Amino acid sequence: MKGVKAIVFDLYGTLYDVHSVAGCCSEYFPGRGLEISMLWRQKQLEYTWLRSLMGSYFSFEEATERALLYTCKFLKLPLNHEERQVLCEAYLKIQPFPEVRDALSELQSMDMTLAILSNGSVNSIESVVSNSGLTSRFTHLISVDSAKVFKPHPNVYRLAEKAFDRHRSQILFVSSNAWDASGARHYGFPVCWVNRSGSTFEELGQSPNYVINSLDQLPRLTKLMFAS
Amino acid sequence: MKGVKAIVFDLYGTLYDVHSVAGCCSEYFPGRGLEISMLWRQKQLEYTWLRSLMGSYFSFEEATERALLYTCKFLKLPLNHEERQVLCEAYLKIQPFPEVRDALSELQSMDMTLAILSNGSVNSIESVVSNSGLTSRFTHLISVDSAKVFKPHPNVYRLAEKAFDRHRSQILFVSSNAWDASGARHYGFPVCWVNRSGSTFEELGQSPNYVINSLDQLPRLTKLMFAS
Repeated sequence: MKGVKAIVFDLYGTLYDVHSVAGCCSEYFPGRGLEISMLWRQKQLEYTWLRSLMGSYFSFEEATERALLYTCKFLKLPLNHEERQVLCEAYLKIQPFPEVRDALSELQSMDMTLAILSNGSVNSIESVVSNSGLTSRFTHLISVDSAKVFKPHPNVYRLAEKAFDRHRSQILFVSSNAWDASGARHYGFPVCWVNRSGSTFEELGQSPNYVINSLDQLPRLTKLMFAS
Repeated sequence: MKGVKAIVFDLYGTLYDVHSVAGCCSEYFPGRGLEISMLWRQKQLEYTWLRSLMGSYFSFEEATERALLYTCKFLKLPLNHEERQVLCEAYLKIQPFPEVRDALSELQSMDMTLAILSNGSVNSIESVVSNSGLTSRFTHLISVDSAKVFKPHPNVYRLAEKAFDRHRSQILFVSSNAWDASGARHYGFPVCWVNRSGSTFEELGQSPNYVINSLDQLPRLTKLMFAS
């Protein structure tokens, strides 16, 4: 990958912690925050996959709201309209993982071109990134919304090639979501899987090219990669 | 639906109990059978959705085997090649739910035309159905394999229309899997959701037309439906 300096990051779970919303959930349902946010996230993903397969795309915000609705019904937790709105808005203010700011600064100082490719809508991505003050780190914030289908459909990964105007083999794709890393690898990106919690990689027939357990290892890894 | 007498059933989880394999899992991993079979099933479904979305179809048997591999790695349970084979073969011998035999007999005696539409391969469906001695109940055993994509893709549901040579509005679709019931409803079938365990229906934007908690309620329901 000599001379190539483009990196595309997944947003939810990779740069930003989706379980930031657990605190907000706990305010309404004390002691249940993480349980809610775990099921909420699982259903949010399932709904993006299922509606994509049905050929019936909807926005990430709608997937998020429907997943929350299911979660509270399943856990038998009463949720009024106002609480639902507050929790969905919390998804627009999720926080970056602790090492993300410094890692992005260092990559940018190395002349890396950085982008985000996310299931989120344009509005969701911009809200999350600007709320954390990291907008200036990225040259492109790419939403699946223009492809009208969610990851891991190939049309989504193609958006990153178009944005960078580079071939897939010249773009490093970074994700903590093993299913997303598998999809990106299947599409043809070199892939770095960020495995913060000692998870098991998915058995979808693809392996990541690189595995790190924190984004603070990425600057050193890219130095080695892009020099070779 | 006057005069129309065609019913298509989902197989895994609707007519046959996927957790039949829990006993076999317990033989290798005492006390862990249901835990294994629950995660195995969840991953099996996810892998069918994800590989379909990637545009990289594989057989249901391969999805099943890969999901088992993931499950044992995740749960840190050592699984040798022979054990893996035995457990995957157990999926070819899963058992019908207790009320299924009588319900199918009664429906057949009412001149209903019955079929199965399943994610399973032709070989898997035939193995499961013949092993339970129920082959003569069905006029069609329909596998997704000819569509080369899994449920809930519309091309799968279309296979049932072709097999029956009837419009979707004239075929009752019966499933216990809420995501499958949603997909079939989205496609345009009248749908009966079999909710044996008091589950929560998925918030995918569709509701089933009918809900029963056991298949023994289906003969009476269809009498009412097809007479109206």
